[in-house]
Parts: sequence; C-alpha cells; structure tokens
Amino acid sequence: MTVRGDPTTGRTTTSWSNGLPASRSQVVDFVGCSYLGLDNHPAIIAGAIEAIEVHRSLQWSHARTRLKFDPLGELEDILSGIFCARVLAFSSCMLANLGAMPILASGQLTGGSKPLVVFDQSAQISLPYHKPVLAAETRVETIGHNDIEALEGLCRDNSVVVYICDGVYSAGGYSPIKELRQLQERYGLFLYIDDSHGISIFGDRGEGFARPQFPHVLGERTIISASLSKGFGASGGVLMLGAAEHEELFRRHSLPYAASMAPNLAAIGAAIASCKIHRSAELGQRQRRLKQRIDLFDRRVATAEQGNSFPIRTIAIGSETNAIAIAKGILDGGFYTSVAVSPPPGMARIRVCITAGHEVRDIERLCDGILQKITETTGKPYPLR
Amino acid sequence: MTVRGDPTTGRTTTSWSNGLPASRSQVVDFVGCSYLGLDNHPAIIAGAIEAIEVHRSLQWSHARTRLKFDPLGELEDILSGIFCARVLAFSSCMLANLGAMPILASGQLTGGSKPLVVFDQSAQISLPYHKPVLAAETRVETIGHNDIEALEGLCRDNSVVVYICDGVYSAGGYSPIKELRQLQERYGLFLYIDDSHGISIFGDRGEGFARPQFPHVLGERTIISASLSKGFGASGGVLMLGAAEHEELFRRHSLPYAASMAPNLAAIGAAIASCKIHRSAELGQRQRRLKQRIDLFDRRVATAEQGNSFPIRTIAIGSETNAIAIAKGILDGGFYTSVAVSPPPGMARIRVCITAGHEVRDIERLCDGILQKITETTGKPYPLR
Repeated sequence: MTVRGDPTTGRTTTSWSNGLPASRSQVVDFVGCSYLGLDNHPAIIAGAIEAIEVHRSLQWSHARTRLKFDPLGELEDILSGIFCARVLAFSSCMLANLGAMPILASGQLTGGSKPLVVFDQSAQISLPYHKPVLAAETRVETIGHNDIEALEGLCRDNSVVVYICDGVYSAGGYSPIKELRQLQERYGLFLYIDDSHGISIFGDRGEGFARPQFPHVLGERTIISASLSKGFGASGGVLMLGAAEHEELFRRHSLPYAASMAPNLAAIGAAIASCKIHRSAELGQRQRRLKQRIDLFDRRVATAEQGNSFPIRTIAIGSETNAIAIAKGILDGGFYTSVAVSPPPGMARIRVCITAGHEVRDIERLCDGILQKITETTGKPYPLR
Repeated sequence: MTVRGDPTTGRTTTSWSNGLPASRSQVVDFVGCSYLGLDNHPAIIAGAIEAIEVHRSLQWSHARTRLKFDPLGELEDILSGIFCARVLAFSSCMLANLGAMPILASGQLTGGSKPLVVFDQSAQISLPYHKPVLAAETRVETIGHNDIEALEGLCRDNSVVVYICDGVYSAGGYSPIKELRQLQERYGLFLYIDDSHGISIFGDRGEGFARPQFPHVLGERTIISASLSKGFGASGGVLMLGAAEHEELFRRHSLPYAASMAPNLAAIGAAIASCKIHRSAELGQRQRRLKQRIDLFDRRVATAEQGNSFPIRTIAIGSETNAIAIAKGILDGGFYTSVAVSPPPGMARIRVCITAGHEVRDIERLCDGILQKITETTGKPYPLR
C-alpha cells in the first residue's frame, strides 16, 4: 500500500499497490486511463518509431522558439483542425497548465484587468504549484465542487473572474458546462478547463467533453487544456486557444513553451498517428465499444456515476481499511483497481477505469469480484448503507 | 526577430530568428546544446526505437506510483550508478525542479526547519514558478550572481539556508562549487544545483560539473538536477539525491513524480542507450573533441569565458541593434547564433554553443565571420571598447 500526500496541503491519496509483483503480470488493469485502448495501437506505435527514424533524433536540444522539427508544427496544425481551436503542444499537460497561470494572473487575457481566479476544490488542475503562482499576482479563491451558486456570487461581486476546473473529474463526475457558459454570457466569466479525461472519448473527432459545448469559434473567454497521454493514446499535453492574440501571447510568454523542451519526436509522431485515427471511422467504433462496456458495468454495479457516459466509476466503501482490503481481494482475483481516499475520513472509494480495450467477460468478472469481496469484507451486501 | 519576455518579471531575451526559412537548411547551428553531438547518435536513436518496439507502447497511462514499465526502474538504476546518487527520472528537468520546491520549502530536507531559500539571480532555474511556490511556505531571497559574500552573510544570520543555483550557466560562467562547499561545511548550507549544462561534458562517466566536486556519498545537504536533453542526448530530466530518506520523500511527495507522466518509453530507451555511451571510452573521446573545439574558438575570438572549459561563449557587443545586425550577418554567412539580451540595456551579447559535432573548419569560418561582421557593423575591430 502506498499513501501519497502533499506536504503543503496535507491532501493525501492512497493507492493499494506501488507496482505489481512480476507474478501478477496477468492481472487485468482497471486503473489506466487509456479509455479507447489507443496506447498500444499499432499505428500509433508505428508513428512514434517513424518520426524518430526519419529525423534521426529524439529531441532537438533547442528552445522551440529558436529551431524546431517540422512535425511539431504539423501536429499543432492537425490538432487545431480536430479541436477547432489554436492548439499548442507541450511535453506534458502539467507544463501546459503551468505556463498559463502567470498569463492568466497578469490580466492580459482579461482586457488588462487582473482577475479573481476561482478554483473548483476537486479540480486535478488545482495543484499546489498553480495557486501560489497566481496568488503572487492576483486574488485566488477556492469554492466547493461544482458550486455554481458560489461562483455566480463571485461573478456578481467582482468585475473580472477566471474559473479553473476539470471537464471530466478523475475521481468521477464532470463540470456543468452549460451553467458555466450561462455565467460566461451573463458576467463575462473566463473559463479555463482541463479536459484531460474528456478528450477523445466524446465528439465525432474526439473533441472531448468540453470543447463541443462551446461555439465553433472558441472565442476570447475560454481555454481548454488536455493530456495526450490518456484517451488520446500518445504523450504530452495541449492548450486549445480561441484567439490569435492569445496564441501569440502564449507562444511568447508561456515559460514552459520557451524554456522547457517541446514534446519529443516519438510523442509528436505518435500524436500525429492518433490524429489520423481521430479523423477516421475507427474513433466512433472505439467510442461505441467503450460505451457498451460502461453500460455493462452499470447493469451490474450501481454507483453514483451510473448512467453517465464517463468511463470512471467509484464504488463507495467508507472505511479506508475495508476499501484497501477489498481492493486487495479484487487484485488477488486478477483485477487491478485503485482506492481513492480524500478528506474527510471514512469516504474511501474503489475507483475503476473502464476502457474500450477491456473484454466483456473481464468486466463481468470484475463486477462479480467487487460485489463478492465487499460482502466478504464487510459482511453486508452492496450497496453499503 | 523574436523578443520573448515574462509578463510577471518583465525579463526579456531576444533571439534573432524564430525558426529558419527552408532555404537556410544548410546553416550550421551554434545555438543547440547537444554539446557532445549525442542527440543524433545512432545507438541512442536505436535505443529509443527498440524500447517502443519491445513494449508496443509509448506511454503508460498510469501514474508511475501505480504501475510502470520495467525500463524506467532500469534507467534510474543505471543513472544512479553513473551519478553515484539516488536518481529519479522525470519527463523534463523543469518538472523535476518544480516538484522539489514544495519539499524544500516544507523543511523536510532541513531537519524539520523551514529554510530561508536564496536564489542566484542569474540561475536558469530561477523561474517565476519556483519562487512563488516557495514563498507561499517560507522566506525567499535573491542575491547577485555568484555573490558568495552575500550568501555567507545570510548563512550567518539564518540557521537554515538553502541556496539554489545553476552549475554551469546557460549564458556562460559557472558556480564556485568549492566556495559553496566551504559554506556547506561551515554553516550547514543546503545546496540545490541545476547542472543541466554541465552533465555529460565533464567527468569520466559524464557525472557533470557539479557532482564530481562533492564526496563519493552525496549526503543529505545536496541535490543536483539536470536535463537529459542537452549534452546527454536523450530527453527528460533527473534529480540526484544523496539520502534514502530523500528518495522516499520525493517518490511520495513530488507531485510531478506522481501526478504527471513519467518519461515516455522513447525517452527511457534513448537515455539507457546514452548511459552505455557514458560508460564507454567514446565519452572521453567526445569530451576531448569538444575541448579541442573550444580551444580553437578561444584562439581566434577573445571572450570573458576564454580559457574556461565550458562550451558556451558570449561575445560582448553592447548595443542590441548592433548585436542583432551582426547575428543576422553571421546567419547570412551560414552560421546560426543567438543574441542574449538582459537588463540593463546596452549589454547585448552574441551567444555561441560549441559542440563536439562541429567541424573544425566551421568553427574557423564562424570566428572569421564574427570578427568581420562586428567590424562591418560597428566600424571598429573586436574586442569593442
């Protein structure tokens, strides 16, 4: 068992296993986030290899603001088409987000006025790095998860507000984009949405959960970031920007853009190959395959997420000790899940990530195993009351 | 011409060209940091490709604290041997450094006491992200470049001090490690050194500029970080830690370690292949080749760095306009250099990165071109007075 925590916030997450022993190599993985099963797609592997072979290098040792490999520009162009936005690619989504924080804080995205920046308390993007970077320049607040009422109050009381949230939350759930857009229209709210768990699995071209809920032109009051390492099946991260001035601002002033390495050529090649899949009929096939598997899970195990179209399900256990024992039992039965522990105590959940790559019979066996281990461990049938 | 600046500090750097036009593809590059010419080494390319081929994936869509590919552990083991330290690998050096900041600020590396954190004003690592993250938890100061006297004063007046600096500075120069070690011995100073521009080019196994100046056991008062994308010829970044407790602390509490993706498999495969070169006779051959080329440059163009063993040379021009015109003239002659502009105005320099991959005749022609273009542009011979 591993308990991870952050020294500055005291926030901890617990996961059962810190790497599986070799004898468990046959375990079926329900922790990974390759929701469409693209991470080992032959075309994506081939794309990564080909890019390295063609350019005889993995990484250009320059800032990309000086020299860059052509495929990086090609990738940004193709992604811009898919997401219908001005897309910048980074070596990771964390760096993409990080580079945006001082720019948000500066007020340059909000007509020159430094904004009040509001975080959703559950946002993955709400990392201890981002808030101090913002707070050094402007006011920062954190509100309850999806608390639209509180957000509207802040919009009423402050002339310039930025809201930072996830599109799809890694522990289940999602942002009410429709309500957020209403606040945007009513108060000029600026939205910064990390859709790492939403892209690829929604939209005809995998535009994601958030992007299709905005107009064709993303506009000057919305930025969406996303990882290319989850559903997308490649490596790295992106920013989707809506305005030419924003693109110029980020290409000049995002420090990770200028001062850290661009995605390496394997990441670029893999992402270009994944883009081709995103623009083919195969994407819809994989999205439907994922939906069938989510529905199958829902028919067998009831969760708070039941019926929604996201691939993350959390099974409420309560006691941390029980949750860990149950996850261990499930693992012994051949299925790797994780335990999500967040304050307050006694709210432990088992987290399951369903993907298009899972076999139907494995999902059935996982569900049976979950129900059986809960009863064995707690002496009560699921759902626990 | 591109001017890059940081909106929070106003600090700007200017470089002449934002990507070369296609017709300039024959230009010889003196901007890149692949000091040993390893970035297109066939064995490193092959290592990147093989890792992807063997594992049929580029990126594991998990936090590495859950599951990881075996080669990542293998890489960290080999790097630990080379650097004689406990090495953690990251997808970029920026993330490696970022994850260390809250841990430094927490006091967990300094006996439980929150330290005064002191930055060298010229440190590349002195990014606007790091200071606010530290300042949210502890006191932060910035001192002049290599101002050992000021640092000693702070050590005298404060019981726990952390000093953050670069080993080799990207715009030329280096840290006085001997003097820093004396402060470490006298006052218990904790050193955090980014040796991105120093690794590979110094040391029998490429341990770098900083690491060989510390004892065989790195100990509990020193951390060295480095990029694997410059002299090392691969992709990503590392932390070198000296104590088992530090390793455990970072593997649990470094957020980029747990919450951002590990280096992708191409980066891992390339780095493992580069490690093999680092442990072979070829490394010394490349280091000597680099030294010969630096000496050759020094015999032709006098700089403030003349005679030191670092591959970065800066030619003082003064006027920004002149520096840009001269660099443009040099580029028209077939050599790509960069212009370094930092406050105060009128201190512009042309920056040249020499590598083992450069041909002797190209360095000779570059030197001739620099001297000629300076005279043409300013009407005076170099060095300018």
